Amino acid sequence: MSVESRGIPALGELCRRGIVAAPMAGGVSRPELAGAVSDAGGLGFLAAGYKTADGMYEEIKQLRALTAKPFGVNLFMPQPSADQATLDLYRQQLTSESAWYETPIDERSEERHPTDDGYEAKLALLVDDPVPVVSFTFGCPSRDELDALALAGTFTVVTVTTPEEAQAAEWAGADAVCVQGIEAGGHQGTHRDDPQTDGSSGLGLLSLVTQVRETVQLPVIAAGGLMRGAQIAAVRAAGADAAQLGTAFLACPESGAHVMHKQALKNPLFVRTELTRAFSGRPARGLVNRFMREHGPYAPSAYPEVHYMTVGLRKAAARVGDAQGMALWAGQGHRLARDLPAGRLVQVLHSEADSAWTEMALRRSTS
Amino acid sequence: MSVESRGIPALGELCRRGIVAAPMAGGVSRPELAGAVSDAGGLGFLAAGYKTADGMYEEIKQLRALTAKPFGVNLFMPQPSADQATLDLYRQQLTSESAWYETPIDERSEERHPTDDGYEAKLALLVDDPVPVVSFTFGCPSRDELDALALAGTFTVVTVTTPEEAQAAEWAGADAVCVQGIEAGGHQGTHRDDPQTDGSSGLGLLSLVTQVRETVQLPVIAAGGLMRGAQIAAVRAAGADAAQLGTAFLACPESGAHVMHKQALKNPLFVRTELTRAFSGRPARGLVNRFMREHGPYAPSAYPEVHYMTVGLRKAAARVGDAQGMALWAGQGHRLARDLPAGRLVQVLHSEADSAWTEMALRRSTS
Repeated sequence: MSVESRGIPALGELCRRGIVAAPMAGGVSRPELAGAVSDAGGLGFLAAGYKTADGMYEEIKQLRALTAKPFGVNLFMPQPSADQATLDLYRQQLTSESAWYETPIDERSEERHPTDDGYEAKLALLVDDPVPVVSFTFGCPSRDELDALALAGTFTVVTVTTPEEAQAAEWAGADAVCVQGIEAGGHQGTHRDDPQTDGSSGLGLLSLVTQVRETVQLPVIAAGGLMRGAQIAAVRAAGADAAQLGTAFLACPESGAHVMHKQALKNPLFVRTELTRAFSGRPARGLVNRFMREHGPYAPSAYPEVHYMTVGLRKAAARVGDAQGMALWAGQGHRLARDLPAGRLVQVLHSEADSAWTEMALRRSTS
Repeated sequence: MSVESRGIPALGELCRRGIVAAPMAGGVSRPELAGAVSDAGGLGFLAAGYKTADGMYEEIKQLRALTAKPFGVNLFMPQPSADQATLDLYRQQLTSESAWYETPIDERSEERHPTDDGYEAKLALLVDDPVPVVSFTFGCPSRDELDALALAGTFTVVTVTTPEEAQAAEWAGADAVCVQGIEAGGHQGTHRDDPQTDGSSGLGLLSLVTQVRETVQLPVIAAGGLMRGAQIAAVRAAGADAAQLGTAFLACPESGAHVMHKQALKNPLFVRTELTRAFSGRPARGLVNRFMREHGPYAPSAYPEVHYMTVGLRKAAARVGDAQGMALWAGQGHRLARDLPAGRLVQVLHSEADSAWTEMALRRSTS
């Protein structure tokens, strides 16, 4: 059954300009950012990850006060717990960091934080007081969960990194998939983190979009390394219905990213990005810095425990102005970041995509 | 100075359909394959790598007898020599393979093969008896070398994997860059293999094309994971002037790839690809098999010595029908391979790209 026949607006109506601002957890995707994007005809997103259900709800209320346009909320799926020995070992390996930043690593910091990220409470809230779009990262919800949201009139999106994950999302009843290429900044939304690999063998976006399009019938939101309108035109030519950009919006004044994080995106000190488990225990792409180089090689697959283990260290690094100890999440296109206001950036991207089309149509008619 | 003003045809004239068949060394890009592609309005390529200068010239003559259309020849750039201790260690680590396949690893097999791949002799031949296009892999030729080819009326292309390498190619005077994304099958054409990395942090094609376009003025041939016409339309929307496909042509009847290699592309036994130095000593993407899993983790940066060290083992594996011991080079889109005749594949890709445009123009006019 199509979304329209269930009374849910289609993706094209929820996001008229085909541009989605990626949910960036950890304080980046603030209501101010989401509101500016939605007001400009993009689809703004709140990131519920790491927040309490109440904290998420507070932001939804703030965002509703800022815009009457559609927006989305992203949820992290519950994760399996890591074993204590693994965590103890990594905590030990971080001892030098603790000394350096004069910040104790709370012995059981991760125990106070649920590995389910308050998922059920958040979902219950979103069913009770629906928002236009809900997307999921790190797994696929059950059919019942997706049905409950559909009944509430919500458009659901599952983040996928392989054709198999897209298949799972379609079977579960998602309305769309967010197809995340290996180029993407921050966490890879892989449904299961395989400790046997370092996560670096994922598919490039263009290859992945085509493979997903040939596997499922669902609308595709393409994500990963997109910074320019011509790239949006490109993924749409490949069959995507919309493009999702994270790092591009990270540099906007409305983004809640730390100023040092914003500056690092174009700092020639940081020449490349890599996937690492060093900060969170799950592969995520960031600018290569000292912390990553030092701890990446042995960081365990233990998310979100490692995230909570390192959060104090990262904050301490930010306080003393040391970007080498912060998680500088960034996609492969980080050098092309622009610090335009978010609404203006949506307009610029849209008009760049348009120019790319016009240029192509012209080349085609003269060839 | 533009290529036209030097009397060299532009890329669009050398390759009317904007589709290049990637040079695949090791016997895949036979004259039959290159000829069929060029005859269909694509740009066929011969791969001079691992051949003697005479062997290369023999193929050029064969190809000239097959087609009057433009074609290209790809050269490998000379590589630094690996140290003997590194090679001795890896040879020792391959002892079990030698026993298993009952094939001795020639004690000094790699000494009989130059690390410069006969580069100067090949270049001299190509200056003497010019071909329409020459492309380079694993480095950037000197300005003098590129000038000599330009004087001979040859269009030159340098393979690049970063914006910095594209900059070097422009400074040296190349006529175009072949921009190779991390999705590509076979060797990454990185100018210098950094032993400190496993090569997996390279850029996805779409991210790379944009970054190169914003760094240099040269025409861009986009390569990496491209299997469908819609992907060709996509890279052209992103600013590429042509698309280069390897794995897509590997499955064609005219390709010289081993039949087991062709079959493996769509065999569900081989679910993913990875970059490995196991077979050649330089990061190359292939279907993950036993040999890669076993030797990849410690294979040294020692190209082409390791290539010559393992060639006997790989041939023995092929002889006994064991795909787990062969180098199954493949790009990330391998599952989408089609065993169409090469000329027909050029037509199909071209018409798919055309459909993607038409669909986009339609969506655009109704939005």
